[in-house]
Amino acid sequence: MNRHHYGLILAGGRGTRFWPRSRKRSAKQVLNVVGERSLIQATVERLAPVIPPERLWILTNHHLRDEIVRQLPEIPPSQVLAEPAQRNTAPAIGLAAHILHAADPDAVMGVFPADHVISKPSVYRAVLRAGLKGAAAGHLMVVGIQPRWPETGYGYIEFPRGTAPGGIAPLVVKRFHEKPVLAKARRYLAAGNYYWNSGMFFWRAGVLLDQLRLHLPKTATILAALPPVASTRFASQLAHSFPLCDNISIDYAVLEKASIVRGIAAGDFGWNDVGSWNAVYELLGRDSSGNVLPRDSFVLDAHNNFVDARGKAIALLGVDDLIVVDTSDALLVARRDRAQEVGDIVKALEKANRHDLL
Amino acid sequence: MNRHHYGLILAGGRGTRFWPRSRKRSAKQVLNVVGERSLIQATVERLAPVIPPERLWILTNHHLRDEIVRQLPEIPPSQVLAEPAQRNTAPAIGLAAHILHAADPDAVMGVFPADHVISKPSVYRAVLRAGLKGAAAGHLMVVGIQPRWPETGYGYIEFPRGTAPGGIAPLVVKRFHEKPVLAKARRYLAAGNYYWNSGMFFWRAGVLLDQLRLHLPKTATILAALPPVASTRFASQLAHSFPLCDNISIDYAVLEKASIVRGIAAGDFGWNDVGSWNAVYELLGRDSSGNVLPRDSFVLDAHNNFVDARGKAIALLGVDDLIVVDTSDALLVARRDRAQEVGDIVKALEKANRHDLL
Repeated sequence: MNRHHYGLILAGGRGTRFWPRSRKRSAKQVLNVVGERSLIQATVERLAPVIPPERLWILTNHHLRDEIVRQLPEIPPSQVLAEPAQRNTAPAIGLAAHILHAADPDAVMGVFPADHVISKPSVYRAVLRAGLKGAAAGHLMVVGIQPRWPETGYGYIEFPRGTAPGGIAPLVVKRFHEKPVLAKARRYLAAGNYYWNSGMFFWRAGVLLDQLRLHLPKTATILAALPPVASTRFASQLAHSFPLCDNISIDYAVLEKASIVRGIAAGDFGWNDVGSWNAVYELLGRDSSGNVLPRDSFVLDAHNNFVDARGKAIALLGVDDLIVVDTSDALLVARRDRAQEVGDIVKALEKANRHDLL
Repeated sequence: MNRHHYGLILAGGRGTRFWPRSRKRSAKQVLNVVGERSLIQATVERLAPVIPPERLWILTNHHLRDEIVRQLPEIPPSQVLAEPAQRNTAPAIGLAAHILHAADPDAVMGVFPADHVISKPSVYRAVLRAGLKGAAAGHLMVVGIQPRWPETGYGYIEFPRGTAPGGIAPLVVKRFHEKPVLAKARRYLAAGNYYWNSGMFFWRAGVLLDQLRLHLPKTATILAALPPVASTRFASQLAHSFPLCDNISIDYAVLEKASIVRGIAAGDFGWNDVGSWNAVYELLGRDSSGNVLPRDSFVLDAHNNFVDARGKAIALLGVDDLIVVDTSDALLVARRDRAQEVGDIVKALEKANRHDLL
């Protein structure tokens, strides 16, 4: 392990597509939708052999901070920060870079989503080390994952033609592409040099701050003016000035513009962004009828269903391809192929001012 | 009202097709599956203008007796009897006839299922009065209902050709027919003189006892030997001898054999035997998408569903034609056109010794 290697876990999302299990105070990243630990606990554990918890920082929101501190006793609570406002990834990453660079001018940081699943962690850690190495050399490192199907829910990284997966050398990135329509996603898959954008990044904190000054000067100036993180004025100053930052992703603000971007064309490390209940269904082990059910279930001619319910018996009769999620105050029944639209239910709840269910 | 008119409500059924709402101690007849009162409360209220509660007797089982007494404070608790064993309708009706005849040799009794819905009670009460009148004249009176569709779940009463519905004069019954297959049910419907057997009967208690002696002598002898209902020995003697009675329905035991049977060819009094959750769905008012839902529901492109859940919000997404019934310890999700098979789930629970769910 290198003492200049730090990790930033971005944990500010809501994951509304996991309603009714996900709520403002129990968003996707703190839920154990897959396995016995929460997604953020699994993220920290996966990183630990390369970046130990004492060098991890977490950015989240004030609804989730206490729960994250509770779930991760190995991370110093002072390193779990609640953003005063949602300003997308550029200001959040800039803030972490500012803090790390002030404490350690040689800081190299990895940026990790809190809520992804990686089923081959040892393959993954080779990519991690390669990313940190490229970052140390002065690049803005991104990680592409060889696509396994024409996914329309992810952005794509275009590498040079003929790029083979599994290499760990930094490659030139030709272009970033937004989420494609299906026909385009199929062409990407066939072409072979388009990779899923994993949302993981590596860079020197100082290099990222330089790039922010170049491409996002207002935000860079606001962050540079912050007092030291340990000072008593830090929290109040952050609350005042963070909302004034540009509301923009690091991809748009920096990566699509910078010339020092390089990428790793990773092979399959079992990555899944767990985008919906259907992704959970796909990840978990199914029974012989294709169902993913709690232990206490009675099934009559029902297939390919996913049920998440605690402390009660389940009976399914003649139904196929459903998502059923039961909590103490809400019950969702959805078609599995429409699991992406669960977020629209949450929008309807917001519109109806049902704060009790959000 | 005639002081010799009595009612017997048969309330010993389990109604397993209403699981998970129905349990041994909360069977269909004591549930408020349709409207705000339970089915047995509605039955008593419907009878009251013709047969007051103080002249109603109820036969049920020991699981349900306390709940029925609680729900019907207007009926003397001594008139709510738990059968020591399930012996179908002939011994149960014979027992009531024995008790009533001992107290009032002029007793005329109506027999009523506890768990049916009747949406036109004033039309119904005209039939009721006609039944009691025919009974007083010495007939065994049955009630046929003009069929509205080729139902395969009911037995049929065959009247003479050309019988028109809505008359209240006692008609000769040509034959009783068991639940038909669909093709036969269609022929019955087309013929016009086949009526649904409502399961309601009227007769003098003394006449019924005579018929039992003729057609079911063992049971008649057992019942005749019982001590008076008010005596201290009644309960223990009943517990001893009732299980020895023939296990047979009144239809098979008496009605199909007796020559003094007459029937009323009733018109439509909104009768429904509420045979499954789907029948409840059909009975209740649907919204513009064909759904029957609790008030606190959020729907996105979902149609023709029935949901019974208390104290929680419901969200449906893209699903059609489902039955969803949620209780504190069990959740059922079924295809609506397979609601009849809910009883098979209960059989599976019995096989698995899940007494906690029965």
